[in-house]
Amino acid sequence: MNSAPLFAQQVSSRLEIPDMGIWPITAQIKRARLVDGDLIVDWDDQKSSRFLALWLREQCPCTICHSDITRETLIDITDIPMDIQAMECRLDEMGYLLVTWSDQGHASRYHPGWLRANCYDDWARAERGHTRPTWGCDFTVPEFDATGIIENDDHLYEWLTALDSYGLTRLQNVPLEHGRVAHLAERIGKIRSTNFGTVFDVVSKPDADSNAYLSVELPLHMDLPTRETPPGLQFLHCIENAADGGESRFADAYHAAKILKEEAPDIFRIVTTVDYCFQNRAVDCDYRASGPLIKLDSRGEPIESRINTFLTAPFTHLPHEEVKAALEAKHYLMRLLNEDRMRVQFKMAPGDMVAFDNRRALHARTEFFPNTGHRYLEGCYLDRDDLGSRLRMLERAKTIAKDATR
Amino acid sequence: MNSAPLFAQQVSSRLEIPDMGIWPITAQIKRARLVDGDLIVDWDDQKSSRFLALWLREQCPCTICHSDITRETLIDITDIPMDIQAMECRLDEMGYLLVTWSDQGHASRYHPGWLRANCYDDWARAERGHTRPTWGCDFTVPEFDATGIIENDDHLYEWLTALDSYGLTRLQNVPLEHGRVAHLAERIGKIRSTNFGTVFDVVSKPDADSNAYLSVELPLHMDLPTRETPPGLQFLHCIENAADGGESRFADAYHAAKILKEEAPDIFRIVTTVDYCFQNRAVDCDYRASGPLIKLDSRGEPIESRINTFLTAPFTHLPHEEVKAALEAKHYLMRLLNEDRMRVQFKMAPGDMVAFDNRRALHARTEFFPNTGHRYLEGCYLDRDDLGSRLRMLERAKTIAKDATR
Repeated sequence: MNSAPLFAQQVSSRLEIPDMGIWPITAQIKRARLVDGDLIVDWDDQKSSRFLALWLREQCPCTICHSDITRETLIDITDIPMDIQAMECRLDEMGYLLVTWSDQGHASRYHPGWLRANCYDDWARAERGHTRPTWGCDFTVPEFDATGIIENDDHLYEWLTALDSYGLTRLQNVPLEHGRVAHLAERIGKIRSTNFGTVFDVVSKPDADSNAYLSVELPLHMDLPTRETPPGLQFLHCIENAADGGESRFADAYHAAKILKEEAPDIFRIVTTVDYCFQNRAVDCDYRASGPLIKLDSRGEPIESRINTFLTAPFTHLPHEEVKAALEAKHYLMRLLNEDRMRVQFKMAPGDMVAFDNRRALHARTEFFPNTGHRYLEGCYLDRDDLGSRLRMLERAKTIAKDATR
Repeated sequence: MNSAPLFAQQVSSRLEIPDMGIWPITAQIKRARLVDGDLIVDWDDQKSSRFLALWLREQCPCTICHSDITRETLIDITDIPMDIQAMECRLDEMGYLLVTWSDQGHASRYHPGWLRANCYDDWARAERGHTRPTWGCDFTVPEFDATGIIENDDHLYEWLTALDSYGLTRLQNVPLEHGRVAHLAERIGKIRSTNFGTVFDVVSKPDADSNAYLSVELPLHMDLPTRETPPGLQFLHCIENAADGGESRFADAYHAAKILKEEAPDIFRIVTTVDYCFQNRAVDCDYRASGPLIKLDSRGEPIESRINTFLTAPFTHLPHEEVKAALEAKHYLMRLLNEDRMRVQFKMAPGDMVAFDNRRALHARTEFFPNTGHRYLEGCYLDRDDLGSRLRMLERAKTIAKDATR
């Protein structure tokens, strides 16, 4: 049975898996058995997986349960009895798991690669646990060559993996032409347009509708904290940077969260739970949003920040004492973010592009002096959704390619 | 002092308020005093407001603190000492609050309308508390005439107010032409494009990449639960509906939350806290996201749902017992949503358009039979951010117009 991996798309007569993923068979099923109506799968590497009957029944990939056109579920899965039980189980000649269910004897067939990849036993969840590394002043920003990224999916994959892990990367050799930032961003997905346009020019201008378009120093911030979900990625392509000043600075909000949690747990609790308010100040739109300065996921790991001190709206939803604690906590966090141990700073040269997670890697700019030379960046945004989808699609292609060369 | 309201934009010599809002003076300041370095404002309608010194100093609208071009904050507000105190206060001849601060004697001047609108005392927060009404089977869906909405901002405002409150509205007399759904949606803001395009056609087709494009029954669901923030609004314009079947059904997830909280608090706790997983099944993209089936805001009020039973991805992040409880809670919620007491159902006629909150008003479709006639809807999405901004801009315009007619 330990032959070459089997892939779902090689079997066209019926659905093999309930999604479009590619699931190499990394272990074979040695034995399957029933316990209290649930399934236990014993793998040939000594591990075991328990599958709740209801969980497994919902995922039945057969063409009654899932459309073979859209692969979306066809049955209303809430019609499945909550107390469903597996009545019988065995392996077929390909090593797949066959199960007969208590609901009208429905029969299901499960791909061992899919089962292994999706099992949720303690050991499996522990293997999958993934925490992104955080960074401070000793961080070497990962650098990539733009030409390779445009031409080659392997280079693209390396870049996006780094961007996903660290939230800050630097590209070099981006041609000094308009539209190049969009060209690179579109290697990932669709650009997210905002009231600043699809692609925006960061230049000092008289009719500025954002401090970014003045020449003043910009403190550490993210863009568009005024949106329910601010853009996940930001790209800034440096076309000219001859003016004195105008250095770029970054700090990792996830790193700050880690430090806060250890050094000031009370502050950590406030900035991760209180909703802070933001609002834009435009003539033609009025966006507002609120959220914690640092948001945690269900594991308690930071997943986004919402930090910007020049688009602050006043608290109007909290009592006096909580306002005081919240403002003091914000000051504490901002001071930490501004410490030398957090700081990554450099001056972008023409042809450089920074790509960063707008909700993680806060950015700042030192003041620049327009009378000493031109400074001109072109920028755009993208959603995290598109980075995730692109990375998964590249992984899917790599898995297929890897199998083809075996 | 009780003369006509003063508006910030009437005074151009210096900033009056730290934002672009219009703040009618609904009460005058009778007296201002200092308590422990904070400000107490006594209004001429017997009410009092306490402003924390740090809160008020951050919002100083002067042109050192805020740019008179962008209105964004110019100083780094975290440079303000955390223990800042008001040293002196008085009213000027226009009834504005003047404050001198302990940080280098900085002086600030505050507009009474802005102060009143943004104060956060217990009485003020109670007045502002806003809970959206929820609905069940006896709900009469608010109806509007599309022509009026296109031509008239007052009609637009009425429609959007209903859409914001109830999350479900119906428009009539939409011309039977392609592009009309976009035309109406763009009265609000920019359409949100997805992998299904900017405008999508809901028709039965052979190469369907969503169950929506088959003729099968669609159970209650929202679109794109696979995105970090699924679209806030969905618009569906009925151009043809001659096939048998194909009725539209809706249920209010906020109403379900309210019922669950009373009738099944254990289920309520699970569906509002456990992350459920979703994933799309496309050939060319792989979007995944997770979140509670019903999400609560910091007040405990429902603010969004993430419900879809045909794009379910398996739980892979929870232990066995929690998976069991989570799946059972989902079944409980889905059964509640499908009860007659929740159901609003009708068949759309050509020229109808439904506009609904995709993250609140779940939608379903009964099976239809393409061999009995054509069914063709055109649809698009928009973000909640844009609905909020548009409503605030319409309110701003109404406030200005109201003042002009006094």
